[in-house]
Amino acid sequence: MAELGYVGLGVMGGGVVRRLLDAGHTVTVWNRTREKADALLEAGARWAETPREVAERSEITFTMVTNTAAVKAVTSGPDGILAGLGPGKVYVDMSTASPANTRELAERVAAVGADMLDAPVSGSVITLEQGKLSIMVGGDRAVFERVKPVLEAIGPRVFHVGPNGAAVTMKIAINLSLAVQMLAFSEGVLLAEKSGIEREKAVEVMLASVIASPMVVYRGPFVLEQPEEAWFDCRMMQKDMNLALELGRELEVPLPTTAVTNELLTAANGLGVGDKDFAVLFDVLAAMSGLKTEVLA
Amino acid sequence: MAELGYVGLGVMGGGVVRRLLDAGHTVTVWNRTREKADALLEAGARWAETPREVAERSEITFTMVTNTAAVKAVTSGPDGILAGLGPGKVYVDMSTASPANTRELAERVAAVGADMLDAPVSGSVITLEQGKLSIMVGGDRAVFERVKPVLEAIGPRVFHVGPNGAAVTMKIAINLSLAVQMLAFSEGVLLAEKSGIEREKAVEVMLASVIASPMVVYRGPFVLEQPEEAWFDCRMMQKDMNLALELGRELEVPLPTTAVTNELLTAANGLGVGDKDFAVLFDVLAAMSGLKTEVLA
Amino acid sequence: MAELGYVGLGVMGGGVVRRLLDAGHTVTVWNRTREKADALLEAGARWAETPREVAERSEITFTMVTNTAAVKAVTSGPDGILAGLGPGKVYVDMSTASPANTRELAERVAAVGADMLDAPVSGSVITLEQGKLSIMVGGDRAVFERVKPVLEAIGPRVFHVGPNGAAVTMKIAINLSLAVQMLAFSEGVLLAEKSGIEREKAVEVMLASVIASPMVVYRGPFVLEQPEEAWFDCRMMQKDMNLALELGRELEVPLPTTAVTNELLTAANGLGVGDKDFAVLFDVLAAMSGLKTEVLA
Amino acid sequence: MAELGYVGLGVMGGGVVRRLLDAGHTVTVWNRTREKADALLEAGARWAETPREVAERSEITFTMVTNTAAVKAVTSGPDGILAGLGPGKVYVDMSTASPANTRELAERVAAVGADMLDAPVSGSVITLEQGKLSIMVGGDRAVFERVKPVLEAIGPRVFHVGPNGAAVTMKIAINLSLAVQMLAFSEGVLLAEKSGIEREKAVEVMLASVIASPMVVYRGPFVLEQPEEAWFDCRMMQKDMNLALELGRELEVPLPTTAVTNELLTAANGLGVGDKDFAVLFDVLAAMSGLKTEVLA
Repeated sequence: MAELGYVGLGVMGGGVVRRLLDAGHTVTVWNRTREKADALLEAGARWAETPREVAERSEITFTMVTNTAAVKAVTSGPDGILAGLGPGKVYVDMSTASPANTRELAERVAAVGADMLDAPVSGSVITLEQGKLSIMVGGDRAVFERVKPVLEAIGPRVFHVGPNGAAVTMKIAINLSLAVQMLAFSEGVLLAEKSGIEREKAVEVMLASVIASPMVVYRGPFVLEQPEEAWFDCRMMQKDMNLALELGRELEVPLPTTAVTNELLTAANGLGVGDKDFAVLFDVLAAMSGLKTEVLA
Repeated sequence: MAELGYVGLGVMGGGVVRRLLDAGHTVTVWNRTREKADALLEAGARWAETPREVAERSEITFTMVTNTAAVKAVTSGPDGILAGLGPGKVYVDMSTASPANTRELAERVAAVGADMLDAPVSGSVITLEQGKLSIMVGGDRAVFERVKPVLEAIGPRVFHVGPNGAAVTMKIAINLSLAVQMLAFSEGVLLAEKSGIEREKAVEVMLASVIASPMVVYRGPFVLEQPEEAWFDCRMMQKDMNLALELGRELEVPLPTTAVTNELLTAANGLGVGDKDFAVLFDVLAAMSGLKTEVLA
Repeated sequence: MAELGYVGLGVMGGGVVRRLLDAGHTVTVWNRTREKADALLEAGARWAETPREVAERSEITFTMVTNTAAVKAVTSGPDGILAGLGPGKVYVDMSTASPANTRELAERVAAVGADMLDAPVSGSVITLEQGKLSIMVGGDRAVFERVKPVLEAIGPRVFHVGPNGAAVTMKIAINLSLAVQMLAFSEGVLLAEKSGIEREKAVEVMLASVIASPMVVYRGPFVLEQPEEAWFDCRMMQKDMNLALELGRELEVPLPTTAVTNELLTAANGLGVGDKDFAVLFDVLAAMSGLKTEVLA
Repeated sequence: MAELGYVGLGVMGGGVVRRLLDAGHTVTVWNRTREKADALLEAGARWAETPREVAERSEITFTMVTNTAAVKAVTSGPDGILAGLGPGKVYVDMSTASPANTRELAERVAAVGADMLDAPVSGSVITLEQGKLSIMVGGDRAVFERVKPVLEAIGPRVFHVGPNGAAVTMKIAINLSLAVQMLAFSEGVLLAEKSGIEREKAVEVMLASVIASPMVVYRGPFVLEQPEEAWFDCRMMQKDMNLALELGRELEVPLPTTAVTNELLTAANGLGVGDKDFAVLFDVLAAMSGLKTEVLA
C-alpha cells in the first residue's frame, strides 16, 4: 500500500479518496475549505496544512480541481505542490485543464526530479460509486505502470493514451460529446412531446434505443426533473467546450456541433440557469419552442 | 402461430422474416426484386405475386420499405396491400416514413375495416441478430396487444408509444441523434488524432467512456475502416434528418444540432461518398481539417 | 403601350400594377379577394372575373402570388391562366416559387404555344417606390427582349440570368442572405448593447459601416421598433429558406449559415412572433440572452 | 496642424499616415520593420527609434497593430509608448484588440496623466482611399472632441460611441458580420452556379441586389479571382471572430451565425488557405460541395 496525497475534495475528488482509503492506502489530504475534508478525516485520511505538505508526505500526490487557474494555484508558490516534490515522487493531475498548461507543468515537475501524469476520468460520481469509472493517463509509460495499481483502485478501466497532455486532450475530446448528445437528445424529446407523446414515455423509449449512451441514461431523466444539485453545471460544461474549441482552432479541426451547442450553453447562462446541470439545455430549447418548463417557467 | 405477410426484404426486412420463421410463424413474402427472397423461400417462406396477395393470405401484413414513396407504392393501386385488407386483418408498417402519411394511411386502412399500426425499429441488423432490437408501436392499444406476441419474436423490447404516427415520430426523434452523435464523436477523434494520439487508441478510449451509446460502439470503429457495405448510408440518413427538420418546422421546435449535421451529410453527398455508411461524416470532417483519409484520399 | 394582365394584388403586386399604369399601359387585373383591387380600378385598371379571362385579354400576363401552391392555383383548372394562353402570348411569373415547379410550368405553357418567363424581384415595396427594384429573368432570351421594356417600367435593373427557373433560383440564392445578414446584425447589436452601448447608437454606427447592405439599412432600425405591418414576416422568410435548403440538398451544396438561421426562424414561430417582420430575429436572440424586448416582453 | 505620432505601418496604418500628411500634419512614425516606413519618410514623415520616442515627440500618438499582444508590445516596457506619455498628451489605439485590455490600458494611460481613446475603423484600404472610412471612438467625450478634427482627416464619419473599450466592442460587433455575410453570399453563389447559372452572372446579379453591402460589393468579386494579396486574411478574420465569441460568452449573448462561420474559417486554415483573403470561404464551401476552384484545385 502506498503513501498517497490528494488535493481537491469536491464531490468527485472526495469520492476518489474514499475509494483509495477503502483499498487500504494511506491518504493525506488538503482542500481550500477544510470542512469538505471532515468526513474523510473520520474515515482515516490525514490533514496537511498546505498542498506543499501533502506532496512532502506522499509518494504520489493527486489533484482534482476546477480549472487551469486552480491547478496553477495549488501547484505554484511557496505552499504549492511543486515546492514539495522531489526525486522519485509522482504528481498526478486528475483535473480537466488546458493541455498546453499540462505540458508546461510536466516540465516544471521534471525540473525538480519528479514525474507527472495527467489522469482525468470519464464518468460521474455514480460511475465512480459503481466502480465503473475509466481513467485516461498521459505521460511516461514507466511512470504510468508504477501508478497503475493505485489508479485501478479508483476505476477498473485505466488507459495509457500518450505523452503528457494526451489524456486531458482525450478528456476534452470526449466531453464535447456530452453537451452535444444532450442537446440532440433534447431535440428529439421535444419533437416527440410537441407531437403529443408524453415526455416520460419519450424518455423511456429513447433510453431503450441505440442512442442511449451511459451519459444519456444518467442524464436523460433530468429533462423530467432537474437534480437537487447539478452534477456538472452549464458553466463547467462551457469551460470544457471552450477548451475543445481552442484546441480545434489550434489544431485546425472544425467542430460544428460543438460550436453550435456551446451557443446554447451561453443561452442557458443568459437565461439565468447557468448553475443548473447542463441537462437544462432541454429547458432552453423548450423555451425557444414556446414551451415553458418547471425550470424556465 | 400466425399467418403473417411481409413486404420489403432488404437487409433489415429479410432479417426480421428469418426471425419470424424461426419462431414458427408462416410467412408469405413479396419484394420488388424477387432474388432477395430466394434464401427466405428456401428457409420456408412462401412467395406471393403482389403485395395485395400477401395481404389477402395473411392475418397480419408487415411492410419495411425505404421511404414514404415506397410505402405508397406497395399499399396503393389494384395490386396494393389496401386492396387485400379487410375486417379483422392488421397492417403493420415498420418503415420510417412521414408521420402525416402514416396517419392518412391508417384512416384508409380503417375505411376497409382493418387496423393499422406503425412499428419502426430502433437498431441495426446486428442488434436484430443479437435479439436486442427495440420496437416502437403507434396505434390502437387493443390492436397493439394483439400483435405484441408476434413483435416480441422480432425484438424483446416492444413499446406502445401512442396513436397512429406516434411511433414513426419517435423513430425520427431518435434517429436525428444517430447522425449528431456520430459527428460529435468524429470531432473528438480528430482533435485527439491531430494532437498526436493514434486514431485506434482514441476510438478505444472513447468506446470505454460515458458517451459510448450502442450506436457509437457499433459505428465508432468505422472511422478506422468503413464496412464493405453501408449499414445506413448518408442518403438514407439524410432522408430521416429531413423528416425531423420538416417535423421541427411544423411543430415549431428548433433543431440546431440536427440542422448543422444535415449540412455535413450534404457535404458527404457533394464529395461523392453519399453511398457510404454515414460514419463517413468522420472523413468529411477530416477533409475539412486538411487530413486525407482512405475514403477521401 | 401593351395590353397587360396582372394576377395577385398584394402589397408588392399592387405597387407593381400602379407603376405599370403610370407608364401608360392597359392593365387587366384579378385577385382572390376583390377589395384589394379597388384603388387600382379607380386608377384605371380593369377587372376580370377569372385568371383565365386576364390571360385571354392580355398580351403579357403577370402573376405575383405567395408560394408554389398559389401559383398552381391561379394557373391550373378551367379558370386558370393556362386555359387563357395561346400562341404569341407571354406568361411572366414574378412569385418566388420552387424552381422545379417553374420549369414544369414553362413546359405546359409551351405546349399551348405561349412563352413563359420567371421574373422575381429583389427588393421591397420601398425599393419599388424609389424606382430602384432589380428584376431577374429566366427563360428564352428573345422572349426576354420582348418583355424587357415593360419590366423596365417596374424597376430599372433587369437581368437575364438564364433559362426557365434560373431567376427564381437566383432569387432564392439572394434571399437566404436576408435572414442570415439580419441575424448576424442582431448578434452584433446585442453584443454592443449588453456591453453598455445604447441600442440606437449601435444601430447608427452599424448602418454607417461596410456591412450596411440596403437590406440592413431598411430593416436595421426595426430592432428599435417593429413596423406596424410586417414587410416580410418570419413564415414567408422561412418559406424561402426552405426552398434554399431543398435546393441545397438537391444540388449538394452545404448551407451552414442558412440552416442555422432557419432554426431561429422556427424559434420565432415557436415564441409566437412568426407573423412579425423577420427582423424579429433580434428579439428572439435577445430573449435567448435573457434580455426582454418590447416584442417579447 | 498637430504634432502627431503613428506606430504600426501596415497597409492600413501606412494609408492613414499618408492622409494625415496630406492634411498638413507633422507625423513621427515607428514600425517593427523599418522598410515599411521608407515611402512615408520620403513623403515627409519623421522616423523615431522607439515607440516611446514617438510618444515623447507627439501631442497625439496613434497605434494600429495586429492584435492585443502587439498592442501590449508597443505600449509597455522602457521603450513603450506609456513611457513617453505625460500630462496633456493623448494616445489613440486604432487596432482591433480585446475590449478588456483596452480598458486596462486606458487606466494605465490615465495614471501617467495622459488620455486614451480607442478608435478602430470600419472599412478597408479602398474605403480609406475613397475617403469614406468610418471611425468609431471610445473614451472621454472632451478628449474625443479634441482629437476629432484630426480623425476627420482620415475618414469623414467619426462617431463617439461610449467610454473606453466601447469602440473596439463596436468594431468586433460589426466585424463578425463580415465573415458571416461572406459565407451566406458564397452559399447563394454556389446554389446558383450548381444550378447552371454562370458564376460571373450570379455575382453580378447579387451585387445589384438588396444584400449588397459595401463589403459584399468589394469582396464579392473575389470569388471570381482572389486578389494578389489578401486584404484581410482568414487568420486575422478568425482573430476578430474569437474576440466576438469571447465577448459573447462574457456578456451571455449567443452568436449562432458567428460560431458556425468561425468553424469554416478553421476549415480554411486546415485546408492550407488561411493566408488568403477570407473570401476564400467560398472556395472552402465549394470544396465541401465537391466543386474544385482555382484556389483549392
